[in-house]
Amino acid sequence: MSVSLERVRDLDRQDPLADFKRRFALPEGILYLDGNSLGAQPRAARDAVAATLDQWRDELIKGWNQGWFDAPERLGNKLAPLLGAGEGEVVVTDNITLNLFKLLGFITGQRTDGRHVVLSEGGNFPTDGYIAQGFCRLTDHEHRVLPEGADLAEHLDGVAVVVLSEVNYRTGRRRDMAATTRLVHAQGAEVVWDLAHSAGALPVALNDSGARYAVGCTYKYLNGGPGAPGFLYVRRDCQGEGWQPLSGWHGHAAPFAFDADYVPATNITRFRTGTHSALAYSALEASLALWADVDMQALREKSLALTELFRECLADVLTSHGIEDITPASEARGSQVSLVDTEHGYAIVQALIARGVIGDYREPGLLRFGFTPLYLSHEDVWQAARHFREVVESGEYRDPRFRVRAAVT
Amino acid sequence: MSVSLERVRDLDRQDPLADFKRRFALPEGILYLDGNSLGAQPRAARDAVAATLDQWRDELIKGWNQGWFDAPERLGNKLAPLLGAGEGEVVVTDNITLNLFKLLGFITGQRTDGRHVVLSEGGNFPTDGYIAQGFCRLTDHEHRVLPEGADLAEHLDGVAVVVLSEVNYRTGRRRDMAATTRLVHAQGAEVVWDLAHSAGALPVALNDSGARYAVGCTYKYLNGGPGAPGFLYVRRDCQGEGWQPLSGWHGHAAPFAFDADYVPATNITRFRTGTHSALAYSALEASLALWADVDMQALREKSLALTELFRECLADVLTSHGIEDITPASEARGSQVSLVDTEHGYAIVQALIARGVIGDYREPGLLRFGFTPLYLSHEDVWQAARHFREVVESGEYRDPRFRVRAAVT
Repeated sequence: MSVSLERVRDLDRQDPLADFKRRFALPEGILYLDGNSLGAQPRAARDAVAATLDQWRDELIKGWNQGWFDAPERLGNKLAPLLGAGEGEVVVTDNITLNLFKLLGFITGQRTDGRHVVLSEGGNFPTDGYIAQGFCRLTDHEHRVLPEGADLAEHLDGVAVVVLSEVNYRTGRRRDMAATTRLVHAQGAEVVWDLAHSAGALPVALNDSGARYAVGCTYKYLNGGPGAPGFLYVRRDCQGEGWQPLSGWHGHAAPFAFDADYVPATNITRFRTGTHSALAYSALEASLALWADVDMQALREKSLALTELFRECLADVLTSHGIEDITPASEARGSQVSLVDTEHGYAIVQALIARGVIGDYREPGLLRFGFTPLYLSHEDVWQAARHFREVVESGEYRDPRFRVRAAVT
Repeated sequence: MSVSLERVRDLDRQDPLADFKRRFALPEGILYLDGNSLGAQPRAARDAVAATLDQWRDELIKGWNQGWFDAPERLGNKLAPLLGAGEGEVVVTDNITLNLFKLLGFITGQRTDGRHVVLSEGGNFPTDGYIAQGFCRLTDHEHRVLPEGADLAEHLDGVAVVVLSEVNYRTGRRRDMAATTRLVHAQGAEVVWDLAHSAGALPVALNDSGARYAVGCTYKYLNGGPGAPGFLYVRRDCQGEGWQPLSGWHGHAAPFAFDADYVPATNITRFRTGTHSALAYSALEASLALWADVDMQALREKSLALTELFRECLADVLTSHGIEDITPASEARGSQVSLVDTEHGYAIVQALIARGVIGDYREPGLLRFGFTPLYLSHEDVWQAARHFREVVESGEYRDPRFRVRAAVT
């Protein structure tokens, strides 16, 4: 390959984030390039979950007064620095689908200008469009879709709120959050940012970008565990007015007064709904403790170095086999490499998985590889690229067993 | 006391459910009468959660194809027999607040008769009313409250849907589900049953009652763990039409096709939203394995025997100290004993907790004791009653430290 093994080992010796790998429990013989789907397990997660099991057994109902009840706000405050947000601006709760619905209701309910369009993004992760559809059907708003690649500025007429991903889940393309937020606000619309593929993948700058609303998940780059809870950000000065429509007792100003009428909390707590899983939150809290030690600038530098390394090692073989590299230029990139091969893409990914190199495949034709700087070394990436070359050059992927389709997440 | 220790030990020897107690991990020195708030821990839960942690570590993303993704339907099918429901009629998902919102949207969206009232029940657990308020504000439905104790038949004019609890969380009063469902349907309205305090507390008869819609939680009598997921029931013949408004990708007919348009699954899956916690579901699944061995008729008999025993042991001391026993007659009772003492109730509950007898207190004046036949013996109940007598007769509850209020769940 165009980069030597000696060279990548040298890069690993100089890597300021190298020690984090030891804080993850990683299976033997696996090169995991799918942390953008489900993050690996921080070693501390096991003890944290065991401690919560002990607490359930020994303290029973008292556990709710020993850290469980306040976990949504406490974990939100631990997450906030990774997102460029402040204390009291982030709450960990429910999932992205539900948090988007809350914000669509919260934002449109405060508008008095008659704008009634909810715009979602073509080519974005589908659930963002699905929940916009659900919201619009229920409330007589109009749902429109921004065609992929279209100029947003030309599609904001009558738009009350647009849902945009900072990093696209397929292409890995990163939008300029500050410029886009300015554009949307200048045209009288509001924007909710979906941070699913940016939280933990790169330094997010919510406050500095002027962003008022965002949602995201914690089970990808943040390593919170399978189905770990989502989060929701509302800038502090936007929290006071309006209702969010999924008004449950945990979002009440005084949940244990058992009042008949709903009176929303005036802070980020208003976006909670009902009772959350103490087990799920404890795994995430263990991961957030690890994140507290991470230099996000160093993370970004390593992320770009790893994605570049992978592309550089494969450039010639991609060209010679007609596989397109659609990975964006570094300033507009998340933390993934995206390749397109509509004919053999699925089989190549399956053949890689059979060798222990885990990436994923998304219809149509997309080979997706996520790069997680905390538990991937430069040598890991080099070895993954070596397997990729071998699979493609040998024709190994042509084996019929790699063409059988199964449900994949 | 009016019942001897020998007598209750004899009852324990004859108890067909006595062996279940060994399948729970219970703390030493605690008499737990709060399983109606948070159920105790089945011993199998620890291994089940550890296995899911192993799976996350070793299988990573593949775990979603190894039982995680289908857990909402699989666990729903395990839960169904306890609710008198059939295969494919129950899904384990989200929480009660969110599941009520889905059903309010699903039901009202199918009405064409102009009825626009959503009725909730005064004195019911507040979140049911809160989410009805949120739904009505968002959709221009009218929210009304059925006054506590009022005749439902006189409050159904214009009602599209009413939310009723089978067992009231405060009084433990059980509604006749079959008769009430008939009444509501006959008046052209629909009813959603909240089973929070009946699932696992007594044999629920959804199908036999003619009920079409229900929601509930699994962290109380079902022992699924702190914040374990909720469930939702829709009778099979009512699943086909309409949208539920919280339309996320896990409820799509083909979630991994990543279609731009939302096409709901035509079965119970349509009520799923987004990604759920594999850890939380594994603890619940361990508990449901235990429930598969339970004879629900025997459970009901023991539940009534335990509540009667507690009342009988305390009858004289309640009278002499002006504490009102509002527990309903056995046929109209859930699995709890409810006492009222607006002056000293809070302090009595705190004094009992200090002795290791865990009940709870709800404003105004309610002392609430839940009875869980799987892990409470007759002697446990007798000993709890003995403590209660001593606390009240000695005036122990008058200690100032028992008057300090803290947040309680």
